[in-house]
Amino acid sequence: MRVLLVGAGGVGTAVTRIAARRGFLTHMFVADYDLGRAEAAVAALDEPGGRFSAHRLDASDEAAVRRFLGEEGCDVLLNATDPRFVMPLFNAALTAGAHYVDMAMSLSVPHPTAPYEQCGVKLGDEQFALARAWESAGRLALVGMGVEPGLSDVFARYAADELFDEIEEIGVRDGANITVQGYDFAPSFSIWTTIEECLNPPVVYEKARGWYTTAPFSEPEVFDFPEGIGPVECVNVEHEEVLLMPRWVDARRVTFKYGLGDDFIAKLRTLHDLGLDSTAKVTVPGPDGPVQVSPRDVVAACLPDPATLGDRMRGKTCAGTWVKGTKDGAAREVYLYHVVDNEWTMREYGTQAVVWQTALNPVIALELVAGGAWRASGVLGPEALPPQPFLDLLGAYGAPWGLREGH
Amino acid sequence: MRVLLVGAGGVGTAVTRIAARRGFLTHMFVADYDLGRAEAAVAALDEPGGRFSAHRLDASDEAAVRRFLGEEGCDVLLNATDPRFVMPLFNAALTAGAHYVDMAMSLSVPHPTAPYEQCGVKLGDEQFALARAWESAGRLALVGMGVEPGLSDVFARYAADELFDEIEEIGVRDGANITVQGYDFAPSFSIWTTIEECLNPPVVYEKARGWYTTAPFSEPEVFDFPEGIGPVECVNVEHEEVLLMPRWVDARRVTFKYGLGDDFIAKLRTLHDLGLDSTAKVTVPGPDGPVQVSPRDVVAACLPDPATLGDRMRGKTCAGTWVKGTKDGAAREVYLYHVVDNEWTMREYGTQAVVWQTALNPVIALELVAGGAWRASGVLGPEALPPQPFLDLLGAYGAPWGLREGH
Repeated sequence: MRVLLVGAGGVGTAVTRIAARRGFLTHMFVADYDLGRAEAAVAALDEPGGRFSAHRLDASDEAAVRRFLGEEGCDVLLNATDPRFVMPLFNAALTAGAHYVDMAMSLSVPHPTAPYEQCGVKLGDEQFALARAWESAGRLALVGMGVEPGLSDVFARYAADELFDEIEEIGVRDGANITVQGYDFAPSFSIWTTIEECLNPPVVYEKARGWYTTAPFSEPEVFDFPEGIGPVECVNVEHEEVLLMPRWVDARRVTFKYGLGDDFIAKLRTLHDLGLDSTAKVTVPGPDGPVQVSPRDVVAACLPDPATLGDRMRGKTCAGTWVKGTKDGAAREVYLYHVVDNEWTMREYGTQAVVWQTALNPVIALELVAGGAWRASGVLGPEALPPQPFLDLLGAYGAPWGLREGH
Repeated sequence: MRVLLVGAGGVGTAVTRIAARRGFLTHMFVADYDLGRAEAAVAALDEPGGRFSAHRLDASDEAAVRRFLGEEGCDVLLNATDPRFVMPLFNAALTAGAHYVDMAMSLSVPHPTAPYEQCGVKLGDEQFALARAWESAGRLALVGMGVEPGLSDVFARYAADELFDEIEEIGVRDGANITVQGYDFAPSFSIWTTIEECLNPPVVYEKARGWYTTAPFSEPEVFDFPEGIGPVECVNVEHEEVLLMPRWVDARRVTFKYGLGDDFIAKLRTLHDLGLDSTAKVTVPGPDGPVQVSPRDVVAACLPDPATLGDRMRGKTCAGTWVKGTKDGAAREVYLYHVVDNEWTMREYGTQAVVWQTALNPVIALELVAGGAWRASGVLGPEALPPQPFLDLLGAYGAPWGLREGH
């Protein structure tokens, strides 16, 4: 399998390290707008076989990406950029006749008059609008194939197939006990993206009502995470799973709650109250007169780059899917989860846990597509495909999943 | 009396409106770096007598200020700029042979190794270092003569003279119930200055120990403010009164606590935790490539200008001095206070309450100096001079003070 990986940031670099240990790849073209980042990712692999090469490519330039895919005869485009680049890469793969895999879907736009009640443009709407074209082309666009969305969706399908007769609610629950030494406050992932997903109206699915939105940080609950992480306050956040799962899994309700914790929620609320979450430019004094800057960029610039913090991080991160329903006439609740310890990912891969956990899943998906275990066409979420081979490979990659009966 | 007013911002403009109603001024030269601001202040007075004139003057240019004082034969320089300009204006007045009045003192510098335990350079240290020169010149530098410091210091001296035999503690307590319609969050005074005074190490005086510092927001207490404002959470903040009062008033302890409220304290803490209080520049994307900006400037740019909010403000602000001690062998506690209603200041002066209350006090002080009731030389705080004539004039200006027995 010949893969074009677009994006050699934290997640893209981790993808190369995970994929290099597997035999299914013929070649991976590692491309980034900043050639130096792509070269650094490839150089760090020290692979004598030469299966990885570094390239400069602008993810927003659809025509250039399409030409690259054609000229290099790529089977798949793996998108490891931020969600602003989903549509040009998705379209480039379609027109080049390649499969496509991403970890986040096309962006939402809030409802113009009732943003905290009704959906406007939903996450992934732009991609699903082209489902017929992908089906006709006989190519697979596998969307939302990171850890959340991604593994969380595989868990949902597994629960529906194997563990439940009827599902009342599926709730993705994400929590961690990661600390960063030497910093009072240092998020373990991009604050820019965190602001985007946490301050957008969260989306909820109910079978009787369809998709709808609420105010940010709605429906707080304390969820008890496994393997020593313990209870963390979780709140509704806009996330792809809520848009994906109802398309293939029968459930009366689907939610996504993020274990931000009281302190982090308060900080995000303050940024919003002070207008510091805004991407609209403000005018401030500069060295040569007034300049225009985005407050959210300034917030990001004041915090350390999360990709550089792995050595200072301690603790575990947990992604998982809680399911409530009935099996054989009896009530049942399970939590299917995946816990990763930062100490282990740093030692094994030199990559911090949150980034590594995201990167692991699209590599497994590529291996299943390469081997033919996952064979389909159209715009599909991970829950559209058979879950068992995916879950089996988690163990083979050294990061097995777990199941807890009860809440 | 011929007065040079430097600074035609919110407080300076209010000074002109208050002074214009009194007869003691022969002429007030209203000077600002931005001539338009000075002209606007003078034009708004509509004074047929022509006692006010607008001038352009750079407060950081000590020589230019000294020349102006000499050429115009000014008796007093009234400094209504921000504290960065205290020293050039203070020095200009001394060398020109004029009296000097300000509302904030020369800035502090935290202790290099124990900032939350020991004082470094204290507020006003640079000014008090020149006390002998002012005494020799027979001129008065009246420092900290706003509302807090200022009226709060007059209250302390009055309490020592008239209400107590022995004073255990003097605590300046400042609180308000002002809201700003149409904004979730809109401070009624400069956020830049608020960050400076609230995040600097607060200073405390104890007779047995001298001056020392604590961590920001230390010793929280709920203080019940009069005239319907009610209980507000107050915390230690760096303020001039703590440096001024012990020089002239005998007390075992002196503190300043600001009624910021839980919510505002949490916001300031968040700004600090995220590094957004910093004045050190960070690099962010700009329209023509990366630019360097101060995060604190960006915070200020995201919030509305407090001087423009008077029409949207509702409520009262209270400045006052709580004193605990003994009188005639019995324990006593009093709170001497000054409450201003924004509705009244807007109607009477077109000026919001917080700004008006600050501007009122230096005008009263000038009137006392002009009339000879306050006659002294050296670098003096308001508590060095007789309090009764000052308190009497508050009533004459339409804004009387109050006294509450008990806490």
